Amino acid sequence: MIIQKEIRLKQKSRGFHLITSEVIAGLPKLPQVGMINIFIQHTSAGLTINENVDPSVRIDFETIFNKLIPENDPDYIHIFEGSDDMPAHIKSALLGVSITIPIKNERLALGTWQGIYLGEFRDNASERRLFCTIYS
Amino acid sequence: MIIQKEIRLKQKSRGFHLITSEVIAGLPKLPQVGMINIFIQHTSAGLTINENVDPSVRIDFETIFNKLIPENDPDYIHIFEGSDDMPAHIKSALLGVSITIPIKNERLALGTWQGIYLGEFRDNASERRLFCTIYS
Amino acid sequence: MIIQKEIRLKQKSRGFHLITSEVIAGLPKLPQVGMINIFIQHTSAGLTINENVDPSVRIDFETIFNKLIPENDPDYIHIFEGSDDMPAHIKSALLGVSITIPIKNERLALGTWQGIYLGEFRDNASERRLFCTIYS
Repeated sequence: MIIQKEIRLKQKSRGFHLITSEVIAGLPKLPQVGMINIFIQHTSAGLTINENVDPSVRIDFETIFNKLIPENDPDYIHIFEGSDDMPAHIKSALLGVSITIPIKNERLALGTWQGIYLGEFRDNASERRLFCTIYS
Repeated sequence: MIIQKEIRLKQKSRGFHLITSEVIAGLPKLPQVGMINIFIQHTSAGLTINENVDPSVRIDFETIFNKLIPENDPDYIHIFEGSDDMPAHIKSALLGVSITIPIKNERLALGTWQGIYLGEFRDNASERRLFCTIYS
Repeated sequence: MIIQKEIRLKQKSRGFHLITSEVIAGLPKLPQVGMINIFIQHTSAGLTINENVDPSVRIDFETIFNKLIPENDPDYIHIFEGSDDMPAHIKSALLGVSITIPIKNERLALGTWQGIYLGEFRDNASERRLFCTIYS
């Protein structure tokens, strides 16, 4: 059985955000056994799974991603949408736009320290849409 | 129901290529509701989803990936297949070899600006095989 | 049909490891046609698919990942779990924690040169858990 559900995330500032609760709140009751795919329908934000307790981890993610893919590199040619735009596309590809998580006992089978991250890479993004597919 | 379909992409030059149309043309009729996994069976190319309009985005992707993972780093020890080979393996791992996309109303449920990218990381690659699995 | 199976990988040293055989040995008989999702329930290790023959490729992966995400960057603020910890989180996000592989004829439909890699990013990690979901 396949259930699809669209979730609109509340608008976020640039940076990495723990969105596990917001995602779960937007989902229907999960099956006993199954999988969920969460797909972000944007090209300048991404999804990943990482440490779910200490906010300093998310701050360091933002710092290091900005060093890895700096703005204002003179070699960029796609520059007309702002200096944050092209780096945002590349960060999105490095992080990925789609995560697949197992479901067990009506819950996401995440590890103890795992949570879902949104990487928001634009300075002034609007709300982001997640397309969720649950199969069981 | 699961349908598997192999697609052979036409040979591409090194760089990032928008392959959405080529992939869709190779697929059977899609279900009303479902998922597709597209898996590239190679270790020096990758798949991702990103901006589907402006070709300058793909050029900047190639520029920045080459800066991120430079050729001829003297610390490489796997060098006998050419200076483009080991960087190609690492770029493939950063981009990923497998993408999962929701299907809705017999279409890929991509965002407005999303398309499928092939990252071709070898200077002289032969054609690439995609193994597609549709489940509904 | 969905089958879930947990695999505990033997403890590994820091670096990239080819784990295809260890994973297959931990799985039940695979279906004729299907998919498998392998999900690592940790935030300082990752999974990917890459070259399955030459061990020098894995050594270069470790070298380049260490250059890409160096330890002891003075800008890190999440430092109390050791200098390898925060880089491990970021490497995990770059590599990814979940891979989806097609199944055909009771085998993983990997390309000729593809194998499953564990990226172990901590200096002294304990054993790692993989949560595998097979659907057919």
